[in-house]
Amino acid sequence: MRLGVCYYPEHWPESLWEDDARRMKALGIEQVRIAEFAWSRIEPAPGEYDWAWLDRAIDVLGNAGLKVVMCTPTATPPKWLIDLHPDIVPVGADGKPRGFGSRRHYDFSSPSWFEASRTICTAVAARYGNHPAVAFWQTDNEYGCHNTVVSYSPAAVARFREWLKARYQTIDALNRAWGNVFWSMEYRSFDEIDAPTGTVTEANPSHRFDYRRFASDEVARYNRMQVDIIRAHSPGRPVAHNFMQLFNEFDHYKVAADLDVATWDSYPLGALDQQWFEPELKAKFLRTGHPDFASFNHDVYRGMSKLPFWVMEQQPGPVNWAQWNPAPLPGMVRLWSWEAFAHGAGCVSYFRWRQAPFAQEQMHAGLNTPDNRLDVGGHEATRVAEEIRAVAAANVDADAAVRTKVALVYDYEAKWLFEIHPQGADFYYPRFAFEYYSALRALGFDVDVIPVTASLDGYALVVVPPLPVVPDDFAARVAASGAHVVFGPRSGSKTLDLQIPAQLPPGPLASLLPMRVWRVESLRPNIAEPVHVDATIEGHGRHWRDLIDVGSEPTLAVRARFADGHPAYVRRGSAHYFATLFDDRLTEQLFARIAAEAGLTPRVHGDSLRVSRRGALTYVFNYGQRVHTIDGVDAADFVIGSRDVEPQGVAAYRTR
Amino acid sequence: MRLGVCYYPEHWPESLWEDDARRMKALGIEQVRIAEFAWSRIEPAPGEYDWAWLDRAIDVLGNAGLKVVMCTPTATPPKWLIDLHPDIVPVGADGKPRGFGSRRHYDFSSPSWFEASRTICTAVAARYGNHPAVAFWQTDNEYGCHNTVVSYSPAAVARFREWLKARYQTIDALNRAWGNVFWSMEYRSFDEIDAPTGTVTEANPSHRFDYRRFASDEVARYNRMQVDIIRAHSPGRPVAHNFMQLFNEFDHYKVAADLDVATWDSYPLGALDQQWFEPELKAKFLRTGHPDFASFNHDVYRGMSKLPFWVMEQQPGPVNWAQWNPAPLPGMVRLWSWEAFAHGAGCVSYFRWRQAPFAQEQMHAGLNTPDNRLDVGGHEATRVAEEIRAVAAANVDADAAVRTKVALVYDYEAKWLFEIHPQGADFYYPRFAFEYYSALRALGFDVDVIPVTASLDGYALVVVPPLPVVPDDFAARVAASGAHVVFGPRSGSKTLDLQIPAQLPPGPLASLLPMRVWRVESLRPNIAEPVHVDATIEGHGRHWRDLIDVGSEPTLAVRARFADGHPAYVRRGSAHYFATLFDDRLTEQLFARIAAEAGLTPRVHGDSLRVSRRGALTYVFNYGQRVHTIDGVDAADFVIGSRDVEPQGVAAYRTR
Amino acid sequence: MRLGVCYYPEHWPESLWEDDARRMKALGIEQVRIAEFAWSRIEPAPGEYDWAWLDRAIDVLGNAGLKVVMCTPTATPPKWLIDLHPDIVPVGADGKPRGFGSRRHYDFSSPSWFEASRTICTAVAARYGNHPAVAFWQTDNEYGCHNTVVSYSPAAVARFREWLKARYQTIDALNRAWGNVFWSMEYRSFDEIDAPTGTVTEANPSHRFDYRRFASDEVARYNRMQVDIIRAHSPGRPVAHNFMQLFNEFDHYKVAADLDVATWDSYPLGALDQQWFEPELKAKFLRTGHPDFASFNHDVYRGMSKLPFWVMEQQPGPVNWAQWNPAPLPGMVRLWSWEAFAHGAGCVSYFRWRQAPFAQEQMHAGLNTPDNRLDVGGHEATRVAEEIRAVAAANVDADAAVRTKVALVYDYEAKWLFEIHPQGADFYYPRFAFEYYSALRALGFDVDVIPVTASLDGYALVVVPPLPVVPDDFAARVAASGAHVVFGPRSGSKTLDLQIPAQLPPGPLASLLPMRVWRVESLRPNIAEPVHVDATIEGHGRHWRDLIDVGSEPTLAVRARFADGHPAYVRRGSAHYFATLFDDRLTEQLFARIAAEAGLTPRVHGDSLRVSRRGALTYVFNYGQRVHTIDGVDAADFVIGSRDVEPQGVAAYRTR
Repeated sequence: MRLGVCYYPEHWPESLWEDDARRMKALGIEQVRIAEFAWSRIEPAPGEYDWAWLDRAIDVLGNAGLKVVMCTPTATPPKWLIDLHPDIVPVGADGKPRGFGSRRHYDFSSPSWFEASRTICTAVAARYGNHPAVAFWQTDNEYGCHNTVVSYSPAAVARFREWLKARYQTIDALNRAWGNVFWSMEYRSFDEIDAPTGTVTEANPSHRFDYRRFASDEVARYNRMQVDIIRAHSPGRPVAHNFMQLFNEFDHYKVAADLDVATWDSYPLGALDQQWFEPELKAKFLRTGHPDFASFNHDVYRGMSKLPFWVMEQQPGPVNWAQWNPAPLPGMVRLWSWEAFAHGAGCVSYFRWRQAPFAQEQMHAGLNTPDNRLDVGGHEATRVAEEIRAVAAANVDADAAVRTKVALVYDYEAKWLFEIHPQGADFYYPRFAFEYYSALRALGFDVDVIPVTASLDGYALVVVPPLPVVPDDFAARVAASGAHVVFGPRSGSKTLDLQIPAQLPPGPLASLLPMRVWRVESLRPNIAEPVHVDATIEGHGRHWRDLIDVGSEPTLAVRARFADGHPAYVRRGSAHYFATLFDDRLTEQLFARIAAEAGLTPRVHGDSLRVSRRGALTYVFNYGQRVHTIDGVDAADFVIGSRDVEPQGVAAYRTR
Repeated sequence: MRLGVCYYPEHWPESLWEDDARRMKALGIEQVRIAEFAWSRIEPAPGEYDWAWLDRAIDVLGNAGLKVVMCTPTATPPKWLIDLHPDIVPVGADGKPRGFGSRRHYDFSSPSWFEASRTICTAVAARYGNHPAVAFWQTDNEYGCHNTVVSYSPAAVARFREWLKARYQTIDALNRAWGNVFWSMEYRSFDEIDAPTGTVTEANPSHRFDYRRFASDEVARYNRMQVDIIRAHSPGRPVAHNFMQLFNEFDHYKVAADLDVATWDSYPLGALDQQWFEPELKAKFLRTGHPDFASFNHDVYRGMSKLPFWVMEQQPGPVNWAQWNPAPLPGMVRLWSWEAFAHGAGCVSYFRWRQAPFAQEQMHAGLNTPDNRLDVGGHEATRVAEEIRAVAAANVDADAAVRTKVALVYDYEAKWLFEIHPQGADFYYPRFAFEYYSALRALGFDVDVIPVTASLDGYALVVVPPLPVVPDDFAARVAASGAHVVFGPRSGSKTLDLQIPAQLPPGPLASLLPMRVWRVESLRPNIAEPVHVDATIEGHGRHWRDLIDVGSEPTLAVRARFADGHPAYVRRGSAHYFATLFDDRLTEQLFARIAAEAGLTPRVHGDSLRVSRRGALTYVFNYGQRVHTIDGVDAADFVIGSRDVEPQGVAAYRTR
Repeated sequence: MRLGVCYYPEHWPESLWEDDARRMKALGIEQVRIAEFAWSRIEPAPGEYDWAWLDRAIDVLGNAGLKVVMCTPTATPPKWLIDLHPDIVPVGADGKPRGFGSRRHYDFSSPSWFEASRTICTAVAARYGNHPAVAFWQTDNEYGCHNTVVSYSPAAVARFREWLKARYQTIDALNRAWGNVFWSMEYRSFDEIDAPTGTVTEANPSHRFDYRRFASDEVARYNRMQVDIIRAHSPGRPVAHNFMQLFNEFDHYKVAADLDVATWDSYPLGALDQQWFEPELKAKFLRTGHPDFASFNHDVYRGMSKLPFWVMEQQPGPVNWAQWNPAPLPGMVRLWSWEAFAHGAGCVSYFRWRQAPFAQEQMHAGLNTPDNRLDVGGHEATRVAEEIRAVAAANVDADAAVRTKVALVYDYEAKWLFEIHPQGADFYYPRFAFEYYSALRALGFDVDVIPVTASLDGYALVVVPPLPVVPDDFAARVAASGAHVVFGPRSGSKTLDLQIPAQLPPGPLASLLPMRVWRVESLRPNIAEPVHVDATIEGHGRHWRDLIDVGSEPTLAVRARFADGHPAYVRRGSAHYFATLFDDRLTEQLFARIAAEAGLTPRVHGDSLRVSRRGALTYVFNYGQRVHTIDGVDAADFVIGSRDVEPQGVAAYRTR
């Protein structure tokens, strides 16, 4: 458990640096991330490097006893580089090259960009790779931010053709995989294939799906290049990237596989405003964020990080980039910090040390206001630092992983597939995955978020949100694990090539669930289909219906039905299949029932209280508006807070 | 009364073909449409034709006793053709050429496209024109689908200039017709004229109107070329095109004039989702479609077809292309089929034989599921085939036209004009025309839909939705017919050149209705103007108000007034003029009153029951949720169903 | 007090001209604006002028005793000019040049356009500058209409670079002012700087702000060129431009500074439909317009006009260009006319004499219908002319300015800044300024609208809507004036370069209000923060919260608080600061209280009654639906109307 901060010495007079470093240290900060946007200062003109200022900045920080998280500055190529190589900028679906003047104006597939990146990364890594203050590396900044994964440039198309050749070997194989015969879309060679854009109506979904996969792979290839350079010049220091919540246009698992640490940037209020939540929810959680949003991401990145994950950027106050930008309630910065640790974070790093008075993010709060006074977030970070010391003093293991019995499968390709091929306009995968996660958390479970390729061993309950492409070995892994597995609708509905499985959905899941989804429906937002479970439980299905033929299979039990008699929920042994997206309450009730069948003990927390376990501690977070009293815990067992948890309060006690 | 199906042998292993043909025949299918998307298989490389597979496919069908509807494959030009002639693709209003990769990526005005089309059509027509199994032809597929009528290419502009020269002869005549003096928009030669796009604010509406007319004429010219080729090579076989519901960007009457048969593609649920209906209506008719939508189209295409019209594609289950795609209620595929026959269809052809597991339409149902089992739609088609045989066995004339006394005028140019020149943002012509039609159907009338040029003789009631451009001879035809004629607001409000008539609206209708529309208002959706008819009838006007000066004309009776005293409905003899769009209920009440005055007998069917007459039969269709009992018909007179018509049920009895 | 009309002789047969002129004169019209769209008739081909028709038209008008308002025809460059100089058309943010075919298709920065404009203006001014009938000039037409201020052409970028060089002198100064170090956006020379468009995410707000200032300056430069030419050729005639309501993309004060008269085009119903008003308000004021919208603009342009301002175009009936276009209630054209005079207008000029039957505006009413009968607006204008004569006959001073004690500061740069840098998606400056204005009017005050540079002397109450950039001398001027000054939130929140002030907001206002806005929040539309003033007054804050630290300053009084205790309204002496946008009722209550403290006497007029004072007269306007009875005025004192003011009625009486 450590605290960090993001710092931009180049933004401030050098006269401030020593005092800044001193105050960071005094506050309890150990890690300082720098330089990810500093290219124009590092290399102000082509090939002319100015290291002096950065040397001094790192020395100031190191001399104050702080460790530096060094970044490659590739998120912001300078103007002279763009002018030298205009092909660096990405090209939109409309065929227009992007302009210089904000950030991430580069195309992952541009050869000149790849070379320029290699050069600057090598220069930075060579200079600071062995600096004693440099303890950690970050590649680039927030891949995918501002929708920058997919480019439609000639360079991207050229590389896409190579990617397709490698995947399909022959053009006939590609034509078959995509079903190009459908509308005379057959190609005679890979060189005839363009990016799937500008068509009169939708392009072939298999074409689009492959383009998204290709674009994702380009991000991984680019990141790997940076990681290799850093490892070569700075052995022994962990290399990380800071992912951004739900910037899911590339496969985070694939990029994380090349890193030591997965970190992410946590902005609970900005996320609430930007994401799918209904206006009423946005009002309800206006100044706290949704109680499960940060946790969901913690669990996502914990799962893919080799070393403990970090929050590389923690929201410290209002941000500038959502449509509306409220301030966190007092206490929330502390709550969010502890929530990260409770989910296994190794470090929480606040963004940023001091609010900048200029440029795009001048309305983004920091730990200090622009006039250099400690802001609310700064005061709360100070308190967190004190509490970290208190936990340490209490001599309790706060870091050990707690192996939970509950997992949720999260899949990036599923998001792309449903975006390309929704069949119902509001079929939004991250929302459904999140709602399943949220129901599990409301029942008090700690949750591992895992890829579809992960082992399921050791879990008692695995929840699988709509998973269109199911790996061939998945059913076997499910069976081997002994876990109860709940599948969302549309699971197993597509092949790898985005075709319908030969024997219809659930395709490769048929060995678990020997049934046939013979028809589907997507439902308008003003349609809710009544679902009957039993005398005590009823609810509604939304968004979607799989119509299931259970045939005469005696092992398939229909546990819930729609009003017209079609099965809404089918079970066979420990395999459960939901034919629709249930309303939140019904989802929670069914998960509770299945969890109990899996030998687990669900609780009822509603949406104001959240409980997490980590090491020897149990944490309680109060997102609600009333004091919550924890029963059955000895006062002496509390290491943070006490039995009465105030609104926006945190408590942690020794798990007995 | 025959059944057909759309079939794509090129999508399936040849090993399936014989079984497919056998099962089609067994089900009761007589017609099989093929090849409209098969160009890349017919001509896989420039000039290299591969007829062998298609020969075999046609032979298999023919040998099974099926008749082939042969198509020209021009809706999907292959990639190699686009690469050879990049000018084939249409150009958007934004000046961007469209990309390859879906369908309809061609520009009607491109000379190289015209030549390439001529070549492929000649090749197909020459090869199969006299094949004994080929009984019917379809040109292209769904002209106008995906908004592909209007192109902004240089080729289109060049032909537009020629079209203008032919229309106006001199540039001065054009400048006057368009009123170009208005904002110094005068041209000195036809060569100065561009497509009306990219302007700072709206381009001259007369310019835009002529561009739409030109684009429509280009479709007719292109279709005529195809028809001429087919007739030359395949004498004696009817030539058709499959129009699509409300793809009204070209004049369907003009294209149909060159055909033997007008066919259309009927997707009641997709249409409900895509069209103007309010969310509540979309929920109400979610799985049945609007009770008048298919009928309206049947009546449109019956009117323009020389031989009995067809439904070339009948929705057999959920589709893939609407925003949300629910499944028809059980029974609806049968109901829709009989509804088509009841409106005079010669053939109902289901789209498609088997759901394809790949590419864009993989989620579009067929009569069979992708795993080759008969789907609900297939079962219902089987029942329809049985019922057709039962009708035949009953020895009753089911085909003869029934001459109705009620007609509705539908005009394509009216749609374009109001789109270009709405004056109120929600003034949507097809909606208003449909609402008038729906009111007539709710009153139990069979309705002919006719063009404004049609004879009105024999009708007792003619309803004219807002008709801005009224032909000079229309008033005389009305007077000669003796029919009661109801005009919607804005009728007679524009000249052929989209100017205001010299004596103000209703322009050429002044001889029928000697009044003056001196002012108009468009009304926001949250405005409803109270209308008073008499002590028993009141309602509201929406969308629009014509302010009418009836002067001192003694023959003009004001039959309804707005709250501020302005006339809402004016009558003179058998001519009726509505100054606003009444709410649905008031429209129905007024139509009922006028119908009675015209000697007709209106009924009250609401929106759950529909009745149609054809040949010696009366059909009853139940769109509602309760059993409907038909009174006063002998049980022995029923040839389909019985007195008790279930929800989604059909009955037909001998008309007495 | 004079009446005028806009007239287009080129649109009508010459045979109508004399009768038109005669009827204008008879109606009471004195001024006739002509020729602003007549370029293609004045110069039908390059360099070939046709003056004859225009000579005759002016003579006809002059001979009828009418005065001509002569216009430069630059708003509609003809096709041949665009073809000669394709660089004349502006370029959109998407990089696409605009097309010919409507109006305002020119780029203020195009050198060839500047030259062509100079040539045509010189030709027109030289020909008619000394014509005895020509009494007044208008430059161009409605600068900014259809969003035409900002262009992204190469010519604009070239001039922007020059503009930046002049402003910043060195590139280092620019980099500092914009904070370009933030994301490596530093430039090495002015020639590297592009227009702020096409970036991946938002461009630097300082860059965007300067681009908007530059574009505004280009309008002023262009207008000055025209004014100089006219003054050289037509000495002694006032030169005006017709501004358009809330086309605020350029600084109207700067353009007006070069003119003799500021005129504006008043379309109360079109504005209601187009502007920010909620649907309920749009329904409530459907046929009257908002009671304060025209007044607000009158007060804006009165303030910037050297001679009495004009309404150059007065809505005479329904227009064609809003989404929905209702008709004014009978009486409203008269009411609007008198309202203009009551606010100091020198002339009200109706647009247009006769509705044109062709082209884009054929549905825009005139004083006469297209069939040349006097329309409702014409009848009401006739009545206004009679009433003007009655006022003259009453021998009462109706023209003298009334010095009001209340001013509202309106600032164009504030609009641009908040548009570029909103922080909350609905932070719309003109709305907030209008709502403050409206509250003052509802309290019965006459209001001067003034620029931020104006002297505040003589005012008792100055209201300052959110003013981000406060001039350094503003606080001193406030203090010197002795006025009570109310500042909206975000006042003083930015420096000239769009940075946060070093000591935080309110920046230069700290001398008046020694406090610190240490944090801000923007609030979603479904959030209303309760505000407590005292036992009698409560309400809500919307849109925004400034969190204020009043420190230990004893002179700062917190007069209202939010529920969480933060100050909502702070006062120090005569300086008042609102930390949020209060709901309308609370704003009005607080303004009333402050006005009373400032020695003024607020009334309560609600939103149906408006009172204005001008010269020796007090005017009462009834926007409501009931008769309003004026108490306490002698019947003999009425010069227009009487004590009982009908709905849509006007009364004027001698102020006692």
